[in-house]
Order: sequence, then structure tokens, then C-alpha cells
Amino acid sequence: MNAAVDLDPCSKKSVPFKSIDGGVTAPRGFRAAAVACGIKNPEVLRLDLALITSDTPAITDAVFTTNKVRAACVRVSQQHVKLGDARAIIANSGNANACTGPQGIQDAKAMCKATAEALGLKMREVLVCSTGIIGMNMPIQRITPRVSEVAAKLSPTGNEDAARAIMTSDTKPKIYAIEVPLGKGASFRVGGIAKGAGMICPNMATMLSFITTDAKVSRDELKRAMRFAVDQSFNRITIDGDTSTNDTVIVMSNGQAEAPAIKKGSPEAEIFRCALQKVMMELAKMIVSDGERVTKFVEIRVVHARTQADARKAAETVAKSLLVKCSFNGSDPNWGRIIHAVGYSGARIKEELIDIYFNGLIACKGGLTSKTAVSDLEKVVKEPRFTVTIDLNSGSANHTVYTTDLSEAYVDFNSSEYAAALHAKRQKGLV
Amino acid sequence: MNAAVDLDPCSKKSVPFKSIDGGVTAPRGFRAAAVACGIKNPEVLRLDLALITSDTPAITDAVFTTNKVRAACVRVSQQHVKLGDARAIIANSGNANACTGPQGIQDAKAMCKATAEALGLKMREVLVCSTGIIGMNMPIQRITPRVSEVAAKLSPTGNEDAARAIMTSDTKPKIYAIEVPLGKGASFRVGGIAKGAGMICPNMATMLSFITTDAKVSRDELKRAMRFAVDQSFNRITIDGDTSTNDTVIVMSNGQAEAPAIKKGSPEAEIFRCALQKVMMELAKMIVSDGERVTKFVEIRVVHARTQADARKAAETVAKSLLVKCSFNGSDPNWGRIIHAVGYSGARIKEELIDIYFNGLIACKGGLTSKTAVSDLEKVVKEPRFTVTIDLNSGSANHTVYTTDLSEAYVDFNSSEYAAALHAKRQKGLV
Repeated sequence: MNAAVDLDPCSKKSVPFKSIDGGVTAPRGFRAAAVACGIKNPEVLRLDLALITSDTPAITDAVFTTNKVRAACVRVSQQHVKLGDARAIIANSGNANACTGPQGIQDAKAMCKATAEALGLKMREVLVCSTGIIGMNMPIQRITPRVSEVAAKLSPTGNEDAARAIMTSDTKPKIYAIEVPLGKGASFRVGGIAKGAGMICPNMATMLSFITTDAKVSRDELKRAMRFAVDQSFNRITIDGDTSTNDTVIVMSNGQAEAPAIKKGSPEAEIFRCALQKVMMELAKMIVSDGERVTKFVEIRVVHARTQADARKAAETVAKSLLVKCSFNGSDPNWGRIIHAVGYSGARIKEELIDIYFNGLIACKGGLTSKTAVSDLEKVVKEPRFTVTIDLNSGSANHTVYTTDLSEAYVDFNSSEYAAALHAKRQKGLV
Repeated sequence: MNAAVDLDPCSKKSVPFKSIDGGVTAPRGFRAAAVACGIKNPEVLRLDLALITSDTPAITDAVFTTNKVRAACVRVSQQHVKLGDARAIIANSGNANACTGPQGIQDAKAMCKATAEALGLKMREVLVCSTGIIGMNMPIQRITPRVSEVAAKLSPTGNEDAARAIMTSDTKPKIYAIEVPLGKGASFRVGGIAKGAGMICPNMATMLSFITTDAKVSRDELKRAMRFAVDQSFNRITIDGDTSTNDTVIVMSNGQAEAPAIKKGSPEAEIFRCALQKVMMELAKMIVSDGERVTKFVEIRVVHARTQADARKAAETVAKSLLVKCSFNGSDPNWGRIIHAVGYSGARIKEELIDIYFNGLIACKGGLTSKTAVSDLEKVVKEPRFTVTIDLNSGSANHTVYTTDLSEAYVDFNSSEYAAALHAKRQKGLV
């Protein structure tokens, strides 16, 4: 049965992951903390400035937004990543420091400088991330004076505070960590936190994810694993098809685990890659499920495409189609909208070869309506989670994307509700 | 002022167009008619089968959907256009004859054959278009027996019936025609009808437009004018970013005007191109304004891009962005969402060079927030029609796209309301 094609390169490895608490502070030698600076609104204090550090030097890699409009914090962090390995992340919510010109760069550097001073590090050892409203200067006078305080609060139990401090319209913090046995009685750990991908209140949001690990990996291996894991996870989710000015994934590895060093090309290197993927994937799924006003979580699998590029184009186009997302929202097993999106995706397809499944039930066979009872298909799409498999029957390439429905509440939230809230803030002079 | 860049290649020619009644039957020698076959629902009779003919042989050109999933009628009409010049269009609403396999091809051919027989033409002289639900076989037994009846009804006043018969979720027929003086006391006419581009009830809709002209033009000139006019009009509108399986624009020219023949490369050839553009543009704007549950009509102008491709990418990405469309719906002058969409459009841009205007008011200057009072910008976006100009300040290429807001009602219509209606029909065994 075509719907059974396995798309996860890690699923066949029986890696004994154990889910553990602690997020970014689960791996040994990492600490975190957060304080409330009133960045978004000085009248409403909530955690909005987070700090994550490694006690010892770390190997660090990062992936940044591909948007050509890049926030000041992204520009500064990109430079620092180029210069060498950072071991601290200072991150705020409430202001994205995007479209802020030279003043924004100065503010992002000021945040790094204050953090470096508080921790006794070099400036380039600090990465800075911001998320929130764009086009407004940072209220930097409310931020830099608080950095020494958040540094003083750093603790191995500060993970949840940090996870909460980077939230914007997220309804809950996103935290995940695993322990992986490696070597005799030893293990390594990977942990992470993330915040929502939905383009959201107050102005536009950002996908941020900070990952830590105590595995002993080389810089090359970390980079390789990072690319693999990001491509398998964060690059496969879509809520509204937008990429933000601030999207950033950072991974810091400090080698403090007792597990032995992971050698290039070894089975352990593969285990490490899959461990990193596992953490990123869980965080990515949490982001999708917590998308703005989302009621459905849908896995779109394109199988047997001619090439990887064809599989990706078809899956992404279906996952982003407004009409497909509307039909998910209405619990309508509308394979017509799906095949139509495949048709304009740019993927090389033959209409008469396409089969479409809702979970295991075939809805479209060879481009034509199947004999499956519509009432049975409807049962599937009424579920909050289901899989759509599009079998192109043209080759051996596969791709999966995770998407959501499009709800009236999403539109309401991003239009009238949003505009009303912004208008109220403008009246008060808050933005 | 950058916002004043003129993007319409025809706007500088003072072509004395006179708007006239009659749509496709305004040009001399064309007739139209429609009948009600109960294609969508035999219990609810409404006009759903239209016929448009030229009394004399015509030169015909057509542009079809780029979607790789193509309706049977599109496949058959593409063949007929290749074989020579058609002079009749038979078109139905209520069923798109898409994803219907060999049976669909047979049905599309049967419609051409019945029309050819009724009119004494060759089969290849008939083009066939369908719009409506996909994945369901045509109720052909309710259609072909009625073709002789619609042929008998053909009249120079049948335009509005034909325009109504191709409507699906359109709220009104789309009709436009002009007369253009050419030669001593002479003129030529161009007229057209169209139906909605929104992906719509019952399953997915189609942009159909049928244009007629009595101008004396050569086949080459007609083709050239067709490409130009379609690119300036129908290719610049977007409601939900989808292209349908059935999109078709047909132009038929019968040379029955008294105006002299239009020579290649002459000023008259340019006038003809602009006349064709004018008719298509007015129909395109009607389509956008009548988009599903649309409350705003917005012109997105990208000016001073490095290349035409950059201008087009930026304009189309902004016009399709859910968040930008939500902000229009909420009357929010949110230039942040606009610059952000420009950033991920793939256009080559420099953030610090970008200016963004709402009508004549600058909202973003050099990538930063302008000094314009937000209350003044809000006044512009509260209007039902306004223009967003994005000046990339990087070159001399420009592109315009016409778009709409995204309303909660659109989502409601395409999800729950749609699904409920479909479910009810399934219960009745109608689909």
C-alpha cells in the first residue's frame, strides 16, 4: 500500500531515546534564566528577557531566516557565528528589532555587550535574538540594565522561565529533551525550547529555537547534524507560508556528557543526528499544533515523485493552499482541491497517475474519484490529526510537510482583532 | 514622487474608447444565447449552458490554464485551437469536467459535436469550456439534447444570458464592451464576458473569459495582442493565489467592422492591443471586486525593481500574503507585513532602500518607519479601494498586481459553509 511508504530516515534506527525534563538545561553544564523588563508594555510585566549559557566553551552553529529583510539581531548574530563559537544566547520577546536601521544594530550589540560583561565573555561569544513588533526601536533602556540581573539568576532549573520569556502569541511554552544511552552506562542529552512560527501578534512573529547538547561532537559533525535535523523538522512546517525576518535556530554543544566522543561517519554520528532531529521535530510539531487558532494538524506526504525537488514542491504547495486549508477546517475530504494544488505546484506530474489517501483510505485513484464512501473519508478529516498521502507514482522521491487548517479565527485574529489591539496601543502611545 | 510612476503601457495613448452595451454581442456579427439544463442540480433550473458564435469565419486565439491538472474541456479545446480557427464557444457551469478521465474527454467532444451539428460547422470550429465541481462525470444526457435549442435561440441580444450562464459563485455577470473610432466615420468594437477567479463553490472555480471583436486583424496580430492584453490584465489578478484546472481566455475576431484592416506594426495595431487590454482589464477588475466575500480591492505596485522578474515576484508575493491580506481586511496600514513579504519573495532587494506608500502617503522610508501619522495611513486603508506602492529604488522595472483582502467570510464560505452544503448534496445523492 503506497500510503505506507516510510519517509523518516531516522525511523528505522532503533535509537533508545528517553524523553526527559529540563529543555535546554537538561544537558549537563547549561543554565538558563529570565526576567520581566516590560519590553512590550512597561505597564504589563511578564517574562520577556531570557539568557541561556554553557558553563564551559561550546561549539555553536545557527541557521537564520532566508528572508532578505533581516532583523538587526539576526545580522549581529550572523557575524558572531562567523567569528567563532558562542556560548550564550540573550533573547527577548516584545520587540523584533527588525526594520530599525543603524539604531537597531547598535541596540543588538548593546545587548551582546551587556551580556558579555555580566558573564565575563567576549562579545562574539554572545548571540542575540529578538521577536515581536517590527519597525519600532527597542526600548533598550529597559533591557540592558536588567542583563546583570538575569545573569545572576542563571540556574540549571531556569529552563521553563526562558521558554516562557520568548513566547509571543504562543499559548504554551515549547520544551523538549531526550537522553540517549551511548557508551558503557553513559549517555548524552539534547534539549531545546522554541516559540511559535505563526505570523502573529503584536506584529509579526518568528520561529525561534534554542537547542543545547552535552554530546562530544566535532564542529563539522555538529554542522552536518544541524543541517540534516533542521531540514527534517523546522523546514517542513508551515502555518501561513511566511518566513519571518527573525527566524533563528541555534544549537550549542559543550561536550560535558560522559558519553564518548562521537567520531565522524560512525554509527554514533548517525545516532546523534537522529537525536538532534528528534528534539527539533518534537518542537516543530508543538509549534504547528500551537499555531494561531489552529484546529487541525495535518501531515502532507508526497511519495513516488520523480525527484526530491518535485516531491517538495508538491507537498509545500498543497500544505500552503488556502483552499486546501479551508477544506481541512471544514472537515471536507476535498481531494479535488489537493490534486489541483499539485497541478500548479510546478512539480512534474501525470494527472492520471495520481492517487490521494486520507490516512489509509483512498479518495482519488489515477486522478479520478475512488469508490471509497465519502462518509468514511469524512470520518478521517473530522479528526484533529490525520495524514494526506499523495502518491505521484512517477519515481522514488518522497517529502513530508506538516500543516494546519485555516480557520475564521485565524483571519479574525490577524485582521480585526489585531488591528483593534494595535489601534488601542497607538492611542495610549505604547507603539 | 515615486508613487507617481506610470505602470500602464496604454495609459499614455489617448485612445478614445467609448464604453458600450452588449458584451460579446456588441461587435458586429456575433450572437449568443443560453438555456437552463439543470447541470448542477436538476431540481434547480438556472441558465447553465451558453453558446457564443460568429456568423462568419473567425480568427481565434486562446490562453489556457498552466495547471498541470487540466480539465477535459481544456484538453479538447487546446486541440481544436491548434487545428485551426474556431467560431463557436459552448460553455457550461455546474460541472468542470475535470478529473474525469476518458469519459470526460468523450463528454467534451460530445458537446462540440452537438454544437457543430446544430450550427453546420466542423467539430474543430467549436471550443468547449466548463466550470463547476470537479471529479464528477458530466450529466451529459442533460446537456447534449439541449444544444440545438440554445443554437436556435442565438441572437445579437443574447449576451447577458450567456454571461449569466457561466456564473458559479459570482454575485453578478461580468460584461464589458467598447467602441473605438478607426478610419473615417468608422470604428471597431471589442466586447467580453467573464466569470470569477475565486476558487469557489461548488468545488473549485475557474476564470473564464470570452472576448469577441469585429476588428480586421491578422492572426499574428491577434496572437500578439492577446498575449500582451492577458499579461496586462488576467495575469495580474489574484484572489487566493490558486490557478484552476479550467482557466481559459478565448478571443474571436471576425473582421466585420467597417474600420480598415489593421496593419502589423502600425499605430492602429497598438490601438487594437490597448483596446483588447482595456476590455480584459475591466473584466479582470470586475472579477477581483466580485471575489468571494471580498471587502477591499487593492492595487499592489512595485516600482524601480532591478528586473521585470524581480518586480513581478515582489508584487505577486505581497498580493498573495495571507497576513498582508488580513491586514487589509482589518484596515491596518501594516507596512511591516508588506516589507516582510517583499523580503521572502525572492526578488533582489536592499531593505534599506525600500519605500512603501499607501496611496500617496509614505509609510516606510528607506526600510524604516516614516513620520506620517498612523491615523492618516489608517484613513487610506479604511477605503474599499486603495493602492500600495513599493518602491525598491534599485532599477527601472515595474509591475502591478490587483488583489483583495482575506475575510473571515471567505474562510467560512470555503470551509464550514461549503462543506455543509456539499454534505447536504451528498445526502440527497446530487453529487
